[in-house]
Amino acid sequence: MPKRSEEHLEARRRQIVDGARRAFARHGYERATVAVLEDEIGLSRGAIFNYFPSKLELFYALAVDDYANALTTVVQQGWEEAIREIAEKNPDWLGVYLENARRIRTDADFRERWKQRSPELEQRADEYFERLLAEGELRDDVPLDQLGRFVALVADGVALQTGAGFPVDVEPVIGLIRDALAPRK
Amino acid sequence: MPKRSEEHLEARRRQIVDGARRAFARHGYERATVAVLEDEIGLSRGAIFNYFPSKLELFYALAVDDYANALTTVVQQGWEEAIREIAEKNPDWLGVYLENARRIRTDADFRERWKQRSPELEQRADEYFERLLAEGELRDDVPLDQLGRFVALVADGVALQTGAGFPVDVEPVIGLIRDALAPRK
Repeated sequence: MPKRSEEHLEARRRQIVDGARRAFARHGYERATVAVLEDEIGLSRGAIFNYFPSKLELFYALAVDDYANALTTVVQQGWEEAIREIAEKNPDWLGVYLENARRIRTDADFRERWKQRSPELEQRADEYFERLLAEGELRDDVPLDQLGRFVALVADGVALQTGAGFPVDVEPVIGLIRDALAPRK
Repeated sequence: MPKRSEEHLEARRRQIVDGARRAFARHGYERATVAVLEDEIGLSRGAIFNYFPSKLELFYALAVDDYANALTTVVQQGWEEAIREIAEKNPDWLGVYLENARRIRTDADFRERWKQRSPELEQRADEYFERLLAEGELRDDVPLDQLGRFVALVADGVALQTGAGFPVDVEPVIGLIRDALAPRK
């Protein structure tokens, strides 16, 4: 495929994804009808569903994008920055994301795909935590995966409270996580 | 009002609340129609709406009940047990609760009432944390309210993951929170 065409496809995909995020944030998942999506994205349903076979696939792509961005921040800038970014996210979008936790649970296919959403990035996040451990930044008396999962759990708490409209004062939270993870003296 | 009648009212209220919780958990908030509620509760809409003026009020009462129960557990059995109870809650109901974080944010009246939901119990929870501090169980180099809010944040993370269908291994989490809260050596 010629390069220009690839760029065009990527720009188009970006237009769809950004518009859909706005539409879901503004109206919620259920009430973001195909007509609403067309309006917000500025493309016909034919063009949209050429890229994503269904509204649910479109939502799934957004959620995976968010997750991949968060992991990339973890790997490149540290878990602290990833938690800050969640606290600064659009609460409307986080609200949609929370609504869909329910879907993740009740739709078995969706959940299985969600579990496999980004194995390569997860591998890199694991390596990041292994590096912190090797550098003496993390305690070694608790299995490393429990430390990583704890950070993810607190990040989800930040997402839930921010999504419910209660802003989180994030620096004290980061300090407390850091103390939980720190090597025992 | 004669005692028997009070008891009857309370039993009836309990029947409504328990049935509504089942209905919301099974169908989600939106799809739990009044007909579905009648079915699950075993009472007519007239009887139900005699106790709760709307479906939203009924949901609000359930959410406040949960919150009050969690705070009561904190005060009587400690924050550790409260977090265990959340991890063991019905994921279906937690899913409904998450969906409604969005409502808390978008409905200003609902949010204001939610903030005021249980001032007396919150007072007792504050006193519980003050007691822990006085007994030397908590660090004193971080404001006490930040410690309480941190526990609530992790509890919300447990609710989000459990509600999304990913069971949380709760004892390691409790251990890490305990280390975050512990007096510095």
